[in-house]
Amino acid sequence: MALRAALRNRWGFSGLVSQLSSSGCHGRVSSVFVSQMRNNTTSPKINVDFNKSTGVAVLSMQSPPVNSLSLDFLTELCINLEKLEMDKACRGLIITSSQPKVFSAGLDILEMYGKSPERCGEFWRAVQEMWLKMYKSNMVTIAAINGSSPAGGCLLSMTCDYRIMVDNPRYSIGLNETLLGIVAPFWFKDTMVNTVGHRNTELALELGLLYSPSEALKIGLVDQLVPQDQLLTTATETMTKWLAIPDHARQITKSMMRKPTVDKLTSNREADTQNFVNFITKDSIQKSLRMYLEMLKKRKA
Amino acid sequence: MALRAALRNRWGFSGLVSQLSSSGCHGRVSSVFVSQMRNNTTSPKINVDFNKSTGVAVLSMQSPPVNSLSLDFLTELCINLEKLEMDKACRGLIITSSQPKVFSAGLDILEMYGKSPERCGEFWRAVQEMWLKMYKSNMVTIAAINGSSPAGGCLLSMTCDYRIMVDNPRYSIGLNETLLGIVAPFWFKDTMVNTVGHRNTELALELGLLYSPSEALKIGLVDQLVPQDQLLTTATETMTKWLAIPDHARQITKSMMRKPTVDKLTSNREADTQNFVNFITKDSIQKSLRMYLEMLKKRKA
Amino acid sequence: MALRAALRNRWGFSGLVSQLSSSGCHGRVSSVFVSQMRNNTTSPKINVDFNKSTGVAVLSMQSPPVNSLSLDFLTELCINLEKLEMDKACRGLIITSSQPKVFSAGLDILEMYGKSPERCGEFWRAVQEMWLKMYKSNMVTIAAINGSSPAGGCLLSMTCDYRIMVDNPRYSIGLNETLLGIVAPFWFKDTMVNTVGHRNTELALELGLLYSPSEALKIGLVDQLVPQDQLLTTATETMTKWLAIPDHARQITKSMMRKPTVDKLTSNREADTQNFVNFITKDSIQKSLRMYLEMLKKRKA
Repeated sequence: MALRAALRNRWGFSGLVSQLSSSGCHGRVSSVFVSQMRNNTTSPKINVDFNKSTGVAVLSMQSPPVNSLSLDFLTELCINLEKLEMDKACRGLIITSSQPKVFSAGLDILEMYGKSPERCGEFWRAVQEMWLKMYKSNMVTIAAINGSSPAGGCLLSMTCDYRIMVDNPRYSIGLNETLLGIVAPFWFKDTMVNTVGHRNTELALELGLLYSPSEALKIGLVDQLVPQDQLLTTATETMTKWLAIPDHARQITKSMMRKPTVDKLTSNREADTQNFVNFITKDSIQKSLRMYLEMLKKRKA
Repeated sequence: MALRAALRNRWGFSGLVSQLSSSGCHGRVSSVFVSQMRNNTTSPKINVDFNKSTGVAVLSMQSPPVNSLSLDFLTELCINLEKLEMDKACRGLIITSSQPKVFSAGLDILEMYGKSPERCGEFWRAVQEMWLKMYKSNMVTIAAINGSSPAGGCLLSMTCDYRIMVDNPRYSIGLNETLLGIVAPFWFKDTMVNTVGHRNTELALELGLLYSPSEALKIGLVDQLVPQDQLLTTATETMTKWLAIPDHARQITKSMMRKPTVDKLTSNREADTQNFVNFITKDSIQKSLRMYLEMLKKRKA
Repeated sequence: MALRAALRNRWGFSGLVSQLSSSGCHGRVSSVFVSQMRNNTTSPKINVDFNKSTGVAVLSMQSPPVNSLSLDFLTELCINLEKLEMDKACRGLIITSSQPKVFSAGLDILEMYGKSPERCGEFWRAVQEMWLKMYKSNMVTIAAINGSSPAGGCLLSMTCDYRIMVDNPRYSIGLNETLLGIVAPFWFKDTMVNTVGHRNTELALELGLLYSPSEALKIGLVDQLVPQDQLLTTATETMTKWLAIPDHARQITKSMMRKPTVDKLTSNREADTQNFVNFITKDSIQKSLRMYLEMLKKRKA
């Protein structure tokens, strides 16, 4: 609990640990599993509010304290995404956070620390699945970023078609993996290059930069800034503009823009998983993660 | 005539129809045909004014009301381009419009609506030919954009080495195909990515955005804005700067920058044509086009 | 000497000739040679000041008058780079100039004019080697650009991780090869596209543009401008920020960003050399270079 409290007051790193005491069985992300789960009600970590009259769903991440992307969380997210994707009535998706001050703190470090290679691989495939589902979604996807969004949170934002961020200088966004001694994989990189270009990505990734909302707007990492109380209204209005475009033309165009990037991962998915597992289970990397976790604890004390 | 009048007052869509009553035989764009035509005089739809002392030709599009890119128009344009390209004395080309308020309204929708697959294929090959001739021209090419330039008009502008647009907020430019339920093909997309980058292109194409001159300048879709009465003077002065560079060095450099994009089309030209024909002759797309044409008529009534 | 004096007052062209009277034997750049030379003291054309306590080396180019990249110069540069790269204690490299008003005038034209094909090939391989060593260096590399930096000088700057330039409007930077009738090869182009994007590169290379410091900042060709007297302080402070990132994570990320560009040259190195030799030894190109050299002489007279 002490750590959680510390984390509430301290943003700016990826994979902020939210569930040091979490345990138990974890779902698996696979088409079979997902289709079995399809009739489930909305899970506790994710709330989906689908308005049939507008065709727009609002997906709120509500996994305290910081919406860390754990295997559990990712599994539930993917199930919900698949449900919405297969529902012809759902044309648009707004993703936001129910947690104060944070959109998502990114990949859960505890999924990478002290875990077996098998478990790490399972986790990584869930991260890939989330990215694939989002980046090639047929829905219009808008990120309503109402808090900090480091690492995997930034990735999730970048998969969307449009990004609106609350203009609070305390919030930040960026792929800051190198700060922890880990490395954003090629498809994180590709997604960022597609968003802010090669040079901005080079600087951002090598230095693990976290941008304030105004800096993020300047380089194009987000598309628009609004006051907190106008976030959902603006997202909804923006969605209306996107939905005015005929779906089939927009979808074909989106696929044309993103398919080469998607194909790079889908044709190298197992190699990418192996690469991640080999890297993350190295003694030196595990040591980096342990030091980082200890630093978080000390910071509290 | 009613529709034509309506169109004169209503820009912002691609392929604005100019010749509902046009008919008759159409030329074919092929090297054989082009070389046979080489000695023709300037055709009525295109006027070329070549100044031998400066080595600069001014090509004016004069196909009322809106310089729609019909098969006839494209054929004549390609013939003129080939003539100029083969004339060693011609080093620079300025493309502009003789029509008020419009540069070119883009591909002629009537070439895509209710036509046979063969005819659609013939039309598409002419569009490809225009793009290829322009994008890899050895001449310095400057677009003097004196009016709106949606869809194919924007494509034509983007093939040039430099774009100067009249700073009139009533004019707009962009690849707005999705607004009509159709899709810009990969080489339109590639040309735009080369001009304004990946993210701007994603937004522009998915939303079918039409930019005001100042917006177009901001994202780099045009290079310079000038008052109407300074357009040709500025284009001529700019041309002088470009012609100060040794031709061979500039041409090799241009080829280095553009060849990968050109090669993607030339090595997939027939597949791209088939793709276009299959798409455009679909019942659903034909229906979209009919609804669009009817909307134009109703707007007048 | 007259020419040298002229050159001191006249920047803006690449390959400014510094050593019309230079002659003699030249070292070869190869791994064997480099390893044999490793114990040499700092050579006269390059001064290296390595601070073991910070892990940062400052490499000063001191080849009067304009740090032209001759074969001799490149050989010594590569030897020094290899030494530093292999020294585990050296984590960061700041490159600057000891010459007034110039960072580096770029490739030495005298290495390209009137030389045998063999000699031209040897020169070109040294240029490639310099680029390869810099662009994929494991060190953090910062260019402290304290003067004009045309052509090869601009290339050298662009290989660095970060560029800080003195904010003096008399200085300029750019790949201006076409002004001399020669052409920047594909890997110069690739490096620039990675830095400022496709469209800026197209304009820059076709027109041989030389940018003032503020223009260079605007398009992203340099990252920061400072007054002359703050250059090294700022470079050192910036280096500290870069060195705060764990080396292995930064290095893997840098490699991910740059490897595709590096691989394009390494897998085509001999063809690229042949291409350069065939081009530069053409009668027409040799004539261009002679005219350029004569223009420089006349300008003095």
